[in-house]
Amino acid sequence: MHVTLSATLAANEDIARRRRSGERVLHLAFGEAGLPVHPALLARLADAGGSNGYGEVAGLAALREAAAGYWSRRELPTDPDLVVCGPGSKSLLFGLLVAIGADPGEWRSPGDMVLPMPSWVSYAAQAEIVGVRPILVPTPAGEGGVPDPDQVRSAVLHARAQGRTVRSVLATLPDNPTGRLARPETVRRLAEVARELDLVIISDEIYRDLVHDPQATPFLSPADVAPERTVITSGLSKSLALGGWRIGVARLPHTPDGWALRQRLLAVASEIWSAPAAPVQHAAAYAFAEPEEIVERIDDSRRLHATVARAVADRFARAGAKVDVPQGGFYLYPQIPGFDSSDELARTLLDRHGVGVLPGTAFGDEPRSARVRVATSLLYGETAEQRLAALHGSDPLSLPWVAESLDYLEEALGGLTTKEPSRARRGMFLAPAPAR
Amino acid sequence: MHVTLSATLAANEDIARRRRSGERVLHLAFGEAGLPVHPALLARLADAGGSNGYGEVAGLAALREAAAGYWSRRELPTDPDLVVCGPGSKSLLFGLLVAIGADPGEWRSPGDMVLPMPSWVSYAAQAEIVGVRPILVPTPAGEGGVPDPDQVRSAVLHARAQGRTVRSVLATLPDNPTGRLARPETVRRLAEVARELDLVIISDEIYRDLVHDPQATPFLSPADVAPERTVITSGLSKSLALGGWRIGVARLPHTPDGWALRQRLLAVASEIWSAPAAPVQHAAAYAFAEPEEIVERIDDSRRLHATVARAVADRFARAGAKVDVPQGGFYLYPQIPGFDSSDELARTLLDRHGVGVLPGTAFGDEPRSARVRVATSLLYGETAEQRLAALHGSDPLSLPWVAESLDYLEEALGGLTTKEPSRARRGMFLAPAPAR
Repeated sequence: MHVTLSATLAANEDIARRRRSGERVLHLAFGEAGLPVHPALLARLADAGGSNGYGEVAGLAALREAAAGYWSRRELPTDPDLVVCGPGSKSLLFGLLVAIGADPGEWRSPGDMVLPMPSWVSYAAQAEIVGVRPILVPTPAGEGGVPDPDQVRSAVLHARAQGRTVRSVLATLPDNPTGRLARPETVRRLAEVARELDLVIISDEIYRDLVHDPQATPFLSPADVAPERTVITSGLSKSLALGGWRIGVARLPHTPDGWALRQRLLAVASEIWSAPAAPVQHAAAYAFAEPEEIVERIDDSRRLHATVARAVADRFARAGAKVDVPQGGFYLYPQIPGFDSSDELARTLLDRHGVGVLPGTAFGDEPRSARVRVATSLLYGETAEQRLAALHGSDPLSLPWVAESLDYLEEALGGLTTKEPSRARRGMFLAPAPAR
Repeated sequence: MHVTLSATLAANEDIARRRRSGERVLHLAFGEAGLPVHPALLARLADAGGSNGYGEVAGLAALREAAAGYWSRRELPTDPDLVVCGPGSKSLLFGLLVAIGADPGEWRSPGDMVLPMPSWVSYAAQAEIVGVRPILVPTPAGEGGVPDPDQVRSAVLHARAQGRTVRSVLATLPDNPTGRLARPETVRRLAEVARELDLVIISDEIYRDLVHDPQATPFLSPADVAPERTVITSGLSKSLALGGWRIGVARLPHTPDGWALRQRLLAVASEIWSAPAAPVQHAAAYAFAEPEEIVERIDDSRRLHATVARAVADRFARAGAKVDVPQGGFYLYPQIPGFDSSDELARTLLDRHGVGVLPGTAFGDEPRSARVRVATSLLYGETAEQRLAALHGSDPLSLPWVAESLDYLEEALGGLTTKEPSRARRGMFLAPAPAR
């Protein structure tokens, strides 16, 4: 398990090092949204600098009210006092892991949790830090982010029969790494199983507003069908590209258990991070209120992410990969025949073809299934100007820097089946490497 | 142990509730610096809003270099790569607790730690979350922040004889709650003991720049005498009143062990908080470079904290309390005769005299010793204008709102010895309560 703590870091550092030494690497390994901050948020941050008091651990009332409104507009009426803010939804997920099921006065037995396989790198790594053992359950074929409910049931019953305490199950809607959105039927069935087994559902919905086509792939939250046991986490790192600002929000169940969980979560939060940076909270309150300019920005971002993720999936498919069409966010999770493991595949893509991705093993996937996570959001450009052109243009794929990267990728993938270095790769030291 | 997780929160919420209901309470329970943000830092924050990438987990290079310069100017030459930044030094202390001594691949045995008794509320609470058992060792009489070195030695040898693993000892220089600075001899002796027992020293120096009179009370860091085993944590919450901005820094030992600790700390950080808010990091880099205007601001703050803390200590002394003169920060820790416990004392001060403080038990002190922590920094005023007047005035004690609070306190304390409600308190419902 130890390796998962820094697999992403190590991969990204490796890519950065190669680039510094002049090697050309197409960086498809990092889940950063790759877009500039909306000017209205810059203005709010600047105005709020004087907010320097420690403030409430749960977050500013204005932010909690705005986040409550955000969920209420999505048919989840929300009490602002059951919203807890943190410096990134990652911190909240960690705090929840400690707080869920911890008995009062005894923090060291949070109980084990069920994770989808594959799932985001940090869930299992966080679990390791606090001594929670993850139970990895595969997602249904063609889906992602929600562990197969019937397998959850048997895995939990089996673990409990062995004396283990299992308290929670995690879902990611839509999913990182697969880019897929679990079907409503799957979410409903998970809710039934969770209710039968008395599991808390942690629903990581940080990509919710980036579902590419909400008509074609309707979004159902576990909180819609099992509100009494679902905690939702979200944030602005993806929809508004504010990863570096560190802001996340959690919505707790509107039940006595939810209130008790709030108290434990606040106790943990107060001892680890206190609260998100106060000026950031003010700007986030503006964003969660969803004024028109912010809604438009997210609409534009969603279109761009969808267009580029699908174009990249298309390149992989044409090269012979098995890849489900991305349905949300900016990821795809292709499987490539002819490789023995995802590590070998990722290494080959990097060393011989100049394409940086993360192996499926980083997401807890079977080492022998040759799948990699491809993040497409760093293709929009190197500068704010390029990125804004991609965001606002009618045809981002025709922008020279985007088209050039896609061509480079296509050539790299062409070499994969022959296992020869691609032409782009062979020429990589002939001319000085461009900035990207 | 559970209660320590939220004693401060509960006390502060109780005070806020009483004030909302119209009760007058002099708020001396909260360790917030109570001063406005320096305009140069507001400008840096506003300029850095566009910094929205996730960035390095260790922190921006500019910030790490500035913090390295800060320590280098204090005769601790520092490699910027051995600086790790976090959202508040609290988060770094938590991360260190997990990372220190954790064997690679096994995070759940961080080993126990020695804490001074009394010490800041969060050390023991953090330890509880990760399953570290604190060993509380009293400070030498008249000192604070450093556990008595000879008692540390015997306590650690005793614990080890019982099979416990003890890996670290913590010091707070200068101290919260006592407001005292450990003497250089005590620090030297602690370093010797730590070396003999192979303990890491965590030196929390967040109040370092607020030592009231560095000539009279010279500052010695454990890192000056045991650099190979000392981790320093610091931040800008106290010296520059940036608590709500959440920024802290840690300096790791310049040894192979220090580099290994860095890797583990980064692994933990990357899974819990990622990095401090990027715009805040840019502003903090400016502050840690210590340009003249920032140095002057800290000088002014130090003078104000010293003046008011001593004036409050004087009021306690005149009322018959046993109180050591504060030497740093904005706290004092008086003992008042005639009470059976610190809880009873704090409750009486709040219920009968309208003065909110924290009982010594919140800091792990003996329940039967009737000591309370008094924080004096919320006396500077309610508005930015009042606080700036206190900061820049030649005689802050003569400002009407400061003088009035001190008079109120004096009257309240006068009633303590008679155990009668004070006159101020008896009249508290006769007129509408003022804002504070």
